Amino acid sequence: MSGPTPDPLLEALRACVGAAHVLAPDAPAAELEPFERDWRGRQRGRARAVVRPGSTAQVAAVVRACAAAGAPIVPQGGNTGLVLGGVPDPSGTEVLLCTRRLNRIRALDVANHSLTLEAGCVLQTAQQAAAEAGLWLPLSLASEGSCTIGGNLATNAGGTQVLRFGNARDLCLGLEVVCPDGAIWHGLSGLRKDNTGYDLRHLYIGSEGTLGIITAATLKLQPQPAAQGCAWVGVPSLPAALELLALAQRTLGPGLSGFELMGQLALQLVAQHLPALRPPLWPDWPYCVLIELSESADSETQMQARLQSLLQSALQQGCAGDAVLAESLAQAQRLWHVRESIPLAQAQEGLNAKHDISLPISRIPAFCAEAEALLAQALPGARLVNFGHLGDGNLHYNVQCPAGADAAAFLRQHEAHINALVFDCVQRHGGSISAEHGIGTLRAATLPRYKDVQALTLMRQIKQALDPQGLLNPGRVLARPLPDNPPP
Amino acid sequence: MSGPTPDPLLEALRACVGAAHVLAPDAPAAELEPFERDWRGRQRGRARAVVRPGSTAQVAAVVRACAAAGAPIVPQGGNTGLVLGGVPDPSGTEVLLCTRRLNRIRALDVANHSLTLEAGCVLQTAQQAAAEAGLWLPLSLASEGSCTIGGNLATNAGGTQVLRFGNARDLCLGLEVVCPDGAIWHGLSGLRKDNTGYDLRHLYIGSEGTLGIITAATLKLQPQPAAQGCAWVGVPSLPAALELLALAQRTLGPGLSGFELMGQLALQLVAQHLPALRPPLWPDWPYCVLIELSESADSETQMQARLQSLLQSALQQGCAGDAVLAESLAQAQRLWHVRESIPLAQAQEGLNAKHDISLPISRIPAFCAEAEALLAQALPGARLVNFGHLGDGNLHYNVQCPAGADAAAFLRQHEAHINALVFDCVQRHGGSISAEHGIGTLRAATLPRYKDVQALTLMRQIKQALDPQGLLNPGRVLARPLPDNPPP
Repeated sequence: MSGPTPDPLLEALRACVGAAHVLAPDAPAAELEPFERDWRGRQRGRARAVVRPGSTAQVAAVVRACAAAGAPIVPQGGNTGLVLGGVPDPSGTEVLLCTRRLNRIRALDVANHSLTLEAGCVLQTAQQAAAEAGLWLPLSLASEGSCTIGGNLATNAGGTQVLRFGNARDLCLGLEVVCPDGAIWHGLSGLRKDNTGYDLRHLYIGSEGTLGIITAATLKLQPQPAAQGCAWVGVPSLPAALELLALAQRTLGPGLSGFELMGQLALQLVAQHLPALRPPLWPDWPYCVLIELSESADSETQMQARLQSLLQSALQQGCAGDAVLAESLAQAQRLWHVRESIPLAQAQEGLNAKHDISLPISRIPAFCAEAEALLAQALPGARLVNFGHLGDGNLHYNVQCPAGADAAAFLRQHEAHINALVFDCVQRHGGSISAEHGIGTLRAATLPRYKDVQALTLMRQIKQALDPQGLLNPGRVLARPLPDNPPP
Repeated sequence: MSGPTPDPLLEALRACVGAAHVLAPDAPAAELEPFERDWRGRQRGRARAVVRPGSTAQVAAVVRACAAAGAPIVPQGGNTGLVLGGVPDPSGTEVLLCTRRLNRIRALDVANHSLTLEAGCVLQTAQQAAAEAGLWLPLSLASEGSCTIGGNLATNAGGTQVLRFGNARDLCLGLEVVCPDGAIWHGLSGLRKDNTGYDLRHLYIGSEGTLGIITAATLKLQPQPAAQGCAWVGVPSLPAALELLALAQRTLGPGLSGFELMGQLALQLVAQHLPALRPPLWPDWPYCVLIELSESADSETQMQARLQSLLQSALQQGCAGDAVLAESLAQAQRLWHVRESIPLAQAQEGLNAKHDISLPISRIPAFCAEAEALLAQALPGARLVNFGHLGDGNLHYNVQCPAGADAAAFLRQHEAHINALVFDCVQRHGGSISAEHGIGTLRAATLPRYKDVQALTLMRQIKQALDPQGLLNPGRVLARPLPDNPPP
């Protein structure tokens, strides 16, 4: 009623969800910023509107309104993504659809070990709901206090329990999805087995909001572990770390729930910037490994005995050089805390070129040797901060400037070269340039260089079939075919 | 050179794969029959040609030749499917593409626990290759001596190890697929984590050859179990069986690898037709349960102690009425043999209406009570042979004619009614009309009655996008939109 001619789409969106749940571009910057800026602060976009539907029907209404207006939609959950997949671009044409008001737990079926909940539920809330029923949702990420289930599924999140339970996709039994024309796929399901046609669930999981908007999901739960134990092992080499992994898989069986690798420099940064944490066995070994064992059945004592026996064998075989066994849950948590503090310690050391890569586990030693030699030759003094989920073949293979150099200047000058060098080497060893973070906008232009040509063709055919107007998260995953967006 | 004008497609196919590997429709019936007739003998089709390519490149060439001729293709592996998905229809227009000559093991990566092999490899050959490397492929089916890996993946096979390791899709890391235009997707991969775009692997798995032809796969292997144990338990009711399942999940942890249910009548048929097998605890309990525990770590003695302790708790709680513990591997195998002989005993009793259904585990007692009452009312005297993978929510819920009646006549008269009654009840309880067997031709016309409308729309959009000519396994999964093919 006041001000300049309003965008008619804003009126339509207000009619869908109520005026209180639509932010116009002229809203205070402080209100818009949490939606328009990615949490690492690398991009500040401009949304045509921020809209917060409170039900699946409202999501469908919003999608229909946007489709009618030809307005692209960017779905967003907790805005904790790492690849700029959930923030609007700077054009001011994209509608930011925030799922956080879809936050109801719809059903918890204890006998079926399943939890049905809406996409905007925060992961920690879901974990707690499971725990209150005596069950366990084995999805655990650094951002679990703010990331949402919808985002976890849209990006097929990884985390610390993948070795035993798989990625987010492996925990999902069913989905409810709003399609780009506003139709709703009612695919919630508590079934372990269902061979009645194409697996649409796995198609939407990991599609980063480009094919549909996940509004609810049914997740698979597990019995709570009765006992958890943890060991920290210094290993003489990467091949020894692999030998230790095989030994742990053989002797610990399916209870092996974590096998994390940490390079010497990664632990040095922790020791230097977070001295209270005191990494064990550092700096005596080129790599340390954190082994976690979780059992539903064993007692604490049996658990410790099994870890002890593993360590004895490993020391005898020579694949372990030295080892520490956590004697309490608190000690185990301190060991995990060291592992999880590596990114923070690295951030304190300064900007770096991050790579979330995966490789066949058997190729990791050869990859690391080759990549390290190439980097040493190309950028003398550059430092490798190498750590990650070795049991999953997933390394966070980060490159930091030479000690004392200007990190920002180094990155400006060399980041593209470093990325190409690392990713080319990953490709030669049969690996992936994104193990768990996804593609988003950050890697969309890079992807065609490393992805099978026919895979890209199939992806484009599927996108065209399911979102013919190209309204959902355009340019994410599949780069826009524009002349200003050439392959790197 | 001789005889009537040859079909030009036959010449083209011979040029692709060599004359020795093409069968024309005028080949001896005995040569054609193994390809044209489904193994249960329910359908004898007629192929325009049977073609047996020996390499991925030859598959691609055959597909291109068929596409050029507009000839539909029916891919076939071991021809062990249960839903008429892999045999040609009677029209004589479909080309049968047999994958069995694609039978090479391409790579076994012990450190990565992965096996790359061609689609035509027989499952048992793959199991043996893994075992020879000290590893385990935990996919096990009744037809493992003749079914192929390509067929296992195309149909997302289940089997006896699903409770712990999932279906065939959960064992697959990567695929190589020939698309309907002859293009090859090179998606073989030894990676546990790869978030670089849409999960094409899961789209092809379970699509029953309607979107592409799987020519090779990389499978995930496990350490061999060090010890396996088995118990046979009489339970007083279905709710008690569920209580026992929850107790087993809690106390046995991830080592629980089998939880099979067998109704009293199922065991009666075994006792009657295969008296040497002598089912334990029969006929004292309405249901018996077979529990299997597999551990990589424990010794045989520890394993038995864990099972013993479970049985003691179960007897105290009242969810078990009586129990037998296998004291040797041979005894365990005998117990499994009783379970696996139910279909044979049932076949000896006569024809029956088979249903491979799944339900949320929590709904199984209510479903069974309701379906049983409805059947008793509609068809007095009809007998329920109810058994299956309770831990997966998967029942083989078969209906046999009243004792002494003419089974064939009973089925002719009542099968459609029985199917509708059972499937309607499955739907009311949130279940699936095909847990592990797939849709094929057998259930294609029935599917639309039970599948979410939008799911079917999405499936049709995907089929249209990836196979616009509709050449691959037409009419399977998605029924042809013909007036003579109305919904049931």
